[in-house]
Formats: sequence, C-alpha cells, structure tokens
Amino acid sequence: MWRVLSTRGFEGLTLRAVAAELGASTGLLTHYFPNKRALLSHALEELDRRSLARPRRTAPADGSAPPAGLARVRASLLDVLPLDGEAAADNRIWVGSWDHALADPELAAAHAGRYARSRTALTAHVADAQRLGELPARADPAALAAGAQAFVLGLVVQALFAPEEFSAERQTELLDAYLAGLAGLAG
Amino acid sequence: MWRVLSTRGFEGLTLRAVAAELGASTGLLTHYFPNKRALLSHALEELDRRSLARPRRTAPADGSAPPAGLARVRASLLDVLPLDGEAAADNRIWVGSWDHALADPELAAAHAGRYARSRTALTAHVADAQRLGELPARADPAALAAGAQAFVLGLVVQALFAPEEFSAERQTELLDAYLAGLAGLAG
Repeated sequence: MWRVLSTRGFEGLTLRAVAAELGASTGLLTHYFPNKRALLSHALEELDRRSLARPRRTAPADGSAPPAGLARVRASLLDVLPLDGEAAADNRIWVGSWDHALADPELAAAHAGRYARSRTALTAHVADAQRLGELPARADPAALAAGAQAFVLGLVVQALFAPEEFSAERQTELLDAYLAGLAGLAG
Repeated sequence: MWRVLSTRGFEGLTLRAVAAELGASTGLLTHYFPNKRALLSHALEELDRRSLARPRRTAPADGSAPPAGLARVRASLLDVLPLDGEAAADNRIWVGSWDHALADPELAAAHAGRYARSRTALTAHVADAQRLGELPARADPAALAAGAQAFVLGLVVQALFAPEEFSAERQTELLDAYLAGLAGLAG
C-alpha cells in the first residue's frame, strides 16, 4: 500500500494496484478491505501510526526533550517538515490525501480535527514561550499557533514540489527566520 | 468538469462523471479528451484562466493598483487566499490537484515552475518594500518571499478544512499579524 501511495498517490490507490504489489488476488484483498474507502481509511490510520512511531524532536528516543518555550515550539514545527526521505514520503502521502478528504465530509472533519488538536498543542508551547518572554506577551497565542501551523504546512507543499530548492537546510533557515519575526514583535 | 471537481475532486474526475454532468455520452467526450490525463491538463489550464480572469487586488478592474511596497505584497498574498466562495472553490480544486501532480513528473515540474514564478514576482514586491524601509533591508528578499508564499499556501489548506474557524476576517488578521512580524524585524 505504501509503495502504491508514494508513487501513484491516493488517486492510484486501488485494490487492484495493492493486490498486484502484494502478488495477491484482488479477491483476497477484498476479504480485508471491502472497498476503496476501507483501504483509504486504513492508509490514513497507518500514516498516523508511522508518524507517532517516528523519532521526534519533541520526544527523542533518549528521553530528552527540548526545554519548554520557543525551543519546543521550534522542535514541534521541525517535526512536521520533510527534512529527510522518510518524512518527505509521509508528507507526500498526507498531502495526497487532501483531494480525497475534501470530497468526503467525514474524512474532512477528521483532518480538521487533527489540525485543531495540533494547534491546541502548539498554542500551549507558544504560551510557555510567552511566559518566558521569548514571544510577545500581548499576542494571542492561538493566533500565533495558527500562523505557525500555516507556515509549516505551506513549506511542506513547497518542499514536495521543489525538493532541490527547499533542502532541509533551507527549510530550517526559513523556519528560523519566521520564528525570529515572531520573536521580533516582542521588542 | 468544474462541478465534478468541486464536489468529488481530481480523484472523482473521470470521463464518465463529466459526460454524465453534460448529459453526453462518454464516447462524445473521448472525441475531445482521449484520456483522463487530457482532462486533467485541461482542468489545470482552465484553473489558470479562471484565476487570471478573476478581479485581483493587485490589478483591480478600475485600473487602480495598490502602491508598490508592503501594500502590494499584502494585496498579492490576499489574492491567493480563499476569502470568498469563488476563490475557495478554485483553491479546493488547486489543492486537490497536488495528489495527482506529485505522481506525474511533468505536472509536478509545471506546478513547481508556477510557484517559482509566483515567488519571483513576490520577491520584486518585497524588494520594493525594503527600498521603502517597510521591510528590513538586511533580510534576503527571496527568503522573505518564499516564507510568505509558504504562509499563505498553508493558510489556504487550513481554511479549506475548517472554513468556519478560518473566516475571511480571520485569514486577513493572521496574514496581517504575519506581515507585522516581518516588518517588526526592521526595527
């Protein structure tokens, strides 16, 4: 399924294509996934599972974590970006799910809920940074978090379409310039 | 074609679906579009045509235009956002094209080229704003433009998934806060 998704996208994710990759019959696959929608839901759950299982800057394998505040805001934004091949593949699949999700109210609501939860978590990190004086106290933390989430999402899309222009280094520079802008407001 | 795209996305854009909307036979449609790829290319060209034909803040119908500098940067970013129903429908179709485009090297290159041209135009507006002292002269205008493009692209995605949370007013507030951050760096 992953091989089909990373090369042909959600549009190319059919029971037949996955069966062919498995060297199995479409009939056998239908036993587990009665239709394409079941396959898509499974793909999205698997994407969640993979994202959580991946080592994250916000929760490294060694148990350390960036200190609360701007460092943690930065780490959680870096965790979203396609800075290596695996993150790029997952992001390509995630971005590819938008076409299908926008046509399916239930999936669209699930995507929206996921983004809302992610903004809530980010808002808490932003509020920490405000208490520490690293971000302007007078700004609305929810607005800063929504802006930061938009920034990294758009950077994901740009990096997927122009990976040479948006190297990991370039993505990090752009994020750091963005965060410097937020912090600059404090002055 | 537009009705199919706005409800079912690129995934649902088939010769059969468009023929059904037209009340025509698939055979007749095949006369004009030999395959799905031809239909998709036509949809993307039509999207370009519609975008150019739409009244734009950067080039209003009355011939006026925002003054060079930060006002023009802001206007060209507002032109991207789904601030009304028509812009939302076009953006939904555009975002929906990414899954397909990322699976097709030729389309991916065309999308990347389009974004690169848009960044080049934006970089010129940013440079104007720098000359006018509205944005920090020491910043790289290409980096500011790439960051601003990422910001609005991500905001488009957020607004499509959560239109109630990201009203036109909220999108504009978030963009203005972002621009204030860029300008704040000047101080």
